[in-house]
Amino acid sequence: MEPFESKVRESFGRQAFMTTLRAEIDCIGPGKIEIRIPFNQSHTQQDGFVHAGVISSIMDSACGYAAYSLAPEGCNVLTVEFKVSLLAPAIGKRFAARAQVKRSGKTLTVCAADAFAIDDDREKLIATMLGTIMTLPAPDTSPSV
Amino acid sequence: MEPFESKVRESFGRQAFMTTLRAEIDCIGPGKIEIRIPFNQSHTQQDGFVHAGVISSIMDSACGYAAYSLAPEGCNVLTVEFKVSLLAPAIGKRFAARAQVKRSGKTLTVCAADAFAIDDDREKLIATMLGTIMTLPAPDTSPSV
Amino acid sequence: MEPFESKVRESFGRQAFMTTLRAEIDCIGPGKIEIRIPFNQSHTQQDGFVHAGVISSIMDSACGYAAYSLAPEGCNVLTVEFKVSLLAPAIGKRFAARAQVKRSGKTLTVCAADAFAIDDDREKLIATMLGTIMTLPAPDTSPSV
Amino acid sequence: MEPFESKVRESFGRQAFMTTLRAEIDCIGPGKIEIRIPFNQSHTQQDGFVHAGVISSIMDSACGYAAYSLAPEGCNVLTVEFKVSLLAPAIGKRFAARAQVKRSGKTLTVCAADAFAIDDDREKLIATMLGTIMTLPAPDTSPSV
Repeated sequence: MEPFESKVRESFGRQAFMTTLRAEIDCIGPGKIEIRIPFNQSHTQQDGFVHAGVISSIMDSACGYAAYSLAPEGCNVLTVEFKVSLLAPAIGKRFAARAQVKRSGKTLTVCAADAFAIDDDREKLIATMLGTIMTLPAPDTSPSV
Repeated sequence: MEPFESKVRESFGRQAFMTTLRAEIDCIGPGKIEIRIPFNQSHTQQDGFVHAGVISSIMDSACGYAAYSLAPEGCNVLTVEFKVSLLAPAIGKRFAARAQVKRSGKTLTVCAADAFAIDDDREKLIATMLGTIMTLPAPDTSPSV
Repeated sequence: MEPFESKVRESFGRQAFMTTLRAEIDCIGPGKIEIRIPFNQSHTQQDGFVHAGVISSIMDSACGYAAYSLAPEGCNVLTVEFKVSLLAPAIGKRFAARAQVKRSGKTLTVCAADAFAIDDDREKLIATMLGTIMTLPAPDTSPSV
Repeated sequence: MEPFESKVRESFGRQAFMTTLRAEIDCIGPGKIEIRIPFNQSHTQQDGFVHAGVISSIMDSACGYAAYSLAPEGCNVLTVEFKVSLLAPAIGKRFAARAQVKRSGKTLTVCAADAFAIDDDREKLIATMLGTIMTLPAPDTSPSV
């Protein structure tokens, strides 16, 4: 396993919320990653679809780890902001968030992610995200950025 | 209880994900609402802060219900998109999302929300959201908007 | 010239601000368009780069016309919102905004656009946009959406 | 004139695009500013309203200068990203963008702005923005952030 992959998987393993969502890393490369979750009734909104916040959560983590995979060793990452457009209701057996870095900078990285509902072999685009990630020297996780 | 409040509380009660987060409506008025959650270790990210997706989830629900409180009877609402800026790490015993309608239209409503970390009586602004909500006739929850 | 192209060119010709920017449609297809402007010193910001608002303007028009090219005959379009991430300073002889529809709906269309600085034959990605466009029946250009 | 005001007015005077729009600073304080423009037919879109990109331009400059007013001496600012929601058509004799800092950090500042159409003494909210501004040491205006 390459260094970028092992550090991403180690950090991902410490995201308790990803464990709560039963999220898994499906595939990973330098500057890109796919995260998957199964449908879970306890993550739905009033109409029985998966809550937009849950889909946004896996897209946010995917953007963060796409950026983190390119960050210099010892650096940490932090989401600055993101915008998500919801394109279709989150109905399906599984959901995937695919993120990739659009521009990698010393301090700021911009990532795009798409989310899909997956049933058997069919995929449907349900959301898209554009976000900004900040790279921080590791010992400094202070909020004063 | 006024009609806008009872319909919001009824719909909120059907959001399984809000129940999962142990979210509660703290106060509610026409076009505004506050939703609160307690800290929960199982909703954290790699540094032990609450995951940005969880904070975004209660802000999104708050924006949706602020819009829903003003929607004509029998109508449904759907989040079209939102943008969230993360201002400080989500560290605290409790978290609150306060949303209010900025502009209410026949089809689209624009809402703003702020999120706070709350410890004892101190509040700290940790995130801010700007989002668009669509109002739909109730029987038509189709994705073809 | 196909109907979608002639209606887009006719509407574009009525955007006085695009004329002011000396903007031109470079190429156009169903659901996609490229708009170009030359560098103009009178459109710069304090460091001599083209103002982010100018680059956003051609991206916004490009998103709108990408959506409009797919809209039913007689319908009008209106930008609901957009988010733009600025990836590099707008330095160059010419600038291009390339937009395409990500999801086309009856009422709302989501478009993505990239902007490039162009010098001779080299292109550099300088900005990216994600926006929402509303389709309206033509006679109703009222703000009450 | 206080130092924050003189540095903002000096930089604003170098934004050629603001001069092109005949923009003026209406009032200014630490962390907040109002910029005004008159209606100009050459800045309109296809329906005769002022182009969303023009309104976004004065909101972007207002956010940037609100952040710049709080930046340490010798530092420069750069817009990282913004999201704008368009609430009503830009119809009026004059337009104002009012920005204020929501959170000021060492590297990143988050600003909110509202835009108004002004006719005689009546004001109408037409757009709202949420944006991120980066503070840079002055000699380094390089794009490698």
